[in-house]
Amino acid sequence: MGALPDSPRVAFEALRDFIQAALSAQGLPDADAAQVAELMAEADLQGSDGHGVIRLPQYTKRIQAGGINVRPQIRVVREKAAMAVIDGDNGMGHLVVSRAVDLAIAKARDCGVAWVSTRYSNHAGPASLYARMPLNHHMVGLYFAVGNANHLPPWGGMDMLLSTNPIAAAFPAGDEPPVVLDMATTVAAYGKVKARAKRGEPMPEGWMIDREGKPLTDPTRAHEGFLLPIGEHKGYGLALMVGLLAGTLGGAAMGRDVVDFNADHVSVTNTGQAILVIDLAAFGDPAGFSDAVDALVRDIRSSARLPGVERIWLPGEQSHLRREAARTAGIALVPALVAELDLLADSLGVPRLARSA
Amino acid sequence: MGALPDSPRVAFEALRDFIQAALSAQGLPDADAAQVAELMAEADLQGSDGHGVIRLPQYTKRIQAGGINVRPQIRVVREKAAMAVIDGDNGMGHLVVSRAVDLAIAKARDCGVAWVSTRYSNHAGPASLYARMPLNHHMVGLYFAVGNANHLPPWGGMDMLLSTNPIAAAFPAGDEPPVVLDMATTVAAYGKVKARAKRGEPMPEGWMIDREGKPLTDPTRAHEGFLLPIGEHKGYGLALMVGLLAGTLGGAAMGRDVVDFNADHVSVTNTGQAILVIDLAAFGDPAGFSDAVDALVRDIRSSARLPGVERIWLPGEQSHLRREAARTAGIALVPALVAELDLLADSLGVPRLARSA
Repeated sequence: MGALPDSPRVAFEALRDFIQAALSAQGLPDADAAQVAELMAEADLQGSDGHGVIRLPQYTKRIQAGGINVRPQIRVVREKAAMAVIDGDNGMGHLVVSRAVDLAIAKARDCGVAWVSTRYSNHAGPASLYARMPLNHHMVGLYFAVGNANHLPPWGGMDMLLSTNPIAAAFPAGDEPPVVLDMATTVAAYGKVKARAKRGEPMPEGWMIDREGKPLTDPTRAHEGFLLPIGEHKGYGLALMVGLLAGTLGGAAMGRDVVDFNADHVSVTNTGQAILVIDLAAFGDPAGFSDAVDALVRDIRSSARLPGVERIWLPGEQSHLRREAARTAGIALVPALVAELDLLADSLGVPRLARSA
Repeated sequence: MGALPDSPRVAFEALRDFIQAALSAQGLPDADAAQVAELMAEADLQGSDGHGVIRLPQYTKRIQAGGINVRPQIRVVREKAAMAVIDGDNGMGHLVVSRAVDLAIAKARDCGVAWVSTRYSNHAGPASLYARMPLNHHMVGLYFAVGNANHLPPWGGMDMLLSTNPIAAAFPAGDEPPVVLDMATTVAAYGKVKARAKRGEPMPEGWMIDREGKPLTDPTRAHEGFLLPIGEHKGYGLALMVGLLAGTLGGAAMGRDVVDFNADHVSVTNTGQAILVIDLAAFGDPAGFSDAVDALVRDIRSSARLPGVERIWLPGEQSHLRREAARTAGIALVPALVAELDLLADSLGVPRLARSA
């Protein structure tokens, strides 16, 4: 997805090990570096190319500027039977959210449902990574996050008080791939804008407008405009809802307090995320649920198509296929990104990323 | 909203009492008739004119055809500390969902968060009614419902396997009105299509397309086409997510099993809804949350506007103002609807709806 056919390819394991080495070299404990690296490489594996290793240079800038705590004391600061708030102590978001999901899974097993919010977290990569974690436990995951830069004004406005605030949801299936929704509440996620800029490709009309309300299609001019919400006022409402759930509720930044981590590598972002985990076993036989999902998936996939439509996709199905393909064929990376990573490796004194044969 | 300036106006209390009498006359216990009537009149009060008394003739048809159980035994069939599934015994949806919300509020008080699903429920009116119920308890409400007729195909498809499946969310504020989102995952809710048909007004392009993919703007031809999701594939994904959460999870109808209650007044709909309640007190001082919401609301309202935009609205703010205005000025109803209600009153042997002076 996105990379050219002649792009360099790397194995998942090579990418993971490279990221781990780069993070270890910057002071993350080995286990933490390994966990973040696994999740970042998984993002690239599933084609979430705006949220994987492309972010490593940015994370590095922030770590080196002191804007991320490489040895955080992540801890529970509020707790009841079916909820908790986790203070991430300004650690890497991947660590903080993983901890939140683990706790939510344990609580959901006891209570049927559980919600864990994070505060003082950071950018954690693609939302679907975290919504998918409960799947192996026959649980549903719903994930909400406050984006790390405000690119969205309220509907009718020009002040960027909101972010792309994504929603992700993952539902176990039986024989079919799980149904996994992962969507920004804007027409395009900002990570996609950045990926276009990196690839030197224009954006389609409808992704962004400039401050005069005119379409903005040059991704290198993204700072001059703002993203558009899906469904006009509805997407604005969704972005606000997600921000209140993922940010305000847990005591994390929202609205004017959101730090633009593209421009500011030092200030504590106080990023907030929230995970809701639902244990299928509490509602009935989990196999009954996954059978129903299988039947629904097949009904949808085999349903009548509009003229010109080759296939009807389920949410998460394309990522699933990309993940399967990239496991064997390797992950295609944009040449400019690989060059940037080589420079980064040299500056950190770690081996360069190994290309596949 | 929607009614003409010279429309007949009725007082909230008159509308509520009329609905209550009409339902009592059809065999609902007095307390149940009163509860449904209060909620239906509240829908009209806040301008949800596709979901209030306009539905009374349809409910009546279904009750008289035996398609609704007027004396249901609503009961909890699955339960853990933070969740329950309620079987509505095919009673009026308003009763079933109200029971679910009450239970979720009680459980959230203990556990911090709670989820209650319904099965064998029915159409329950506007989603925001139920999301708002936890507000008075300093709690957040999130509500999901499976729509009662499939008008939405999967993205790229023509088979209407999905409904408008709404999401609602309500957040307590301090001095400001609460933030209340209530949105169909389609560009327009089907209730709005029906309201247009009743008023004899065309729909804007973008609400529906016909089976050739062309815009459909005549609401009386709505059965020839289908609704469009917000944000293309994203709205399709949201509608699917909401259906899985509100339908499949609780053992209610979803996908091909959804009964079209516009065409079929007899079959048990097995409608599903779900409410998530979050107790702010578990997360910190509820006043801290409502202060933060107030500040955010004011930041948004006073933010810079695009040329030609008179005011930036918060979700739920227009409904709030309509509710306040209609409390004093009365609720405006379309003349054709009032005439229909008069006929209904005569057939049921109850007094006609009293107009305001």
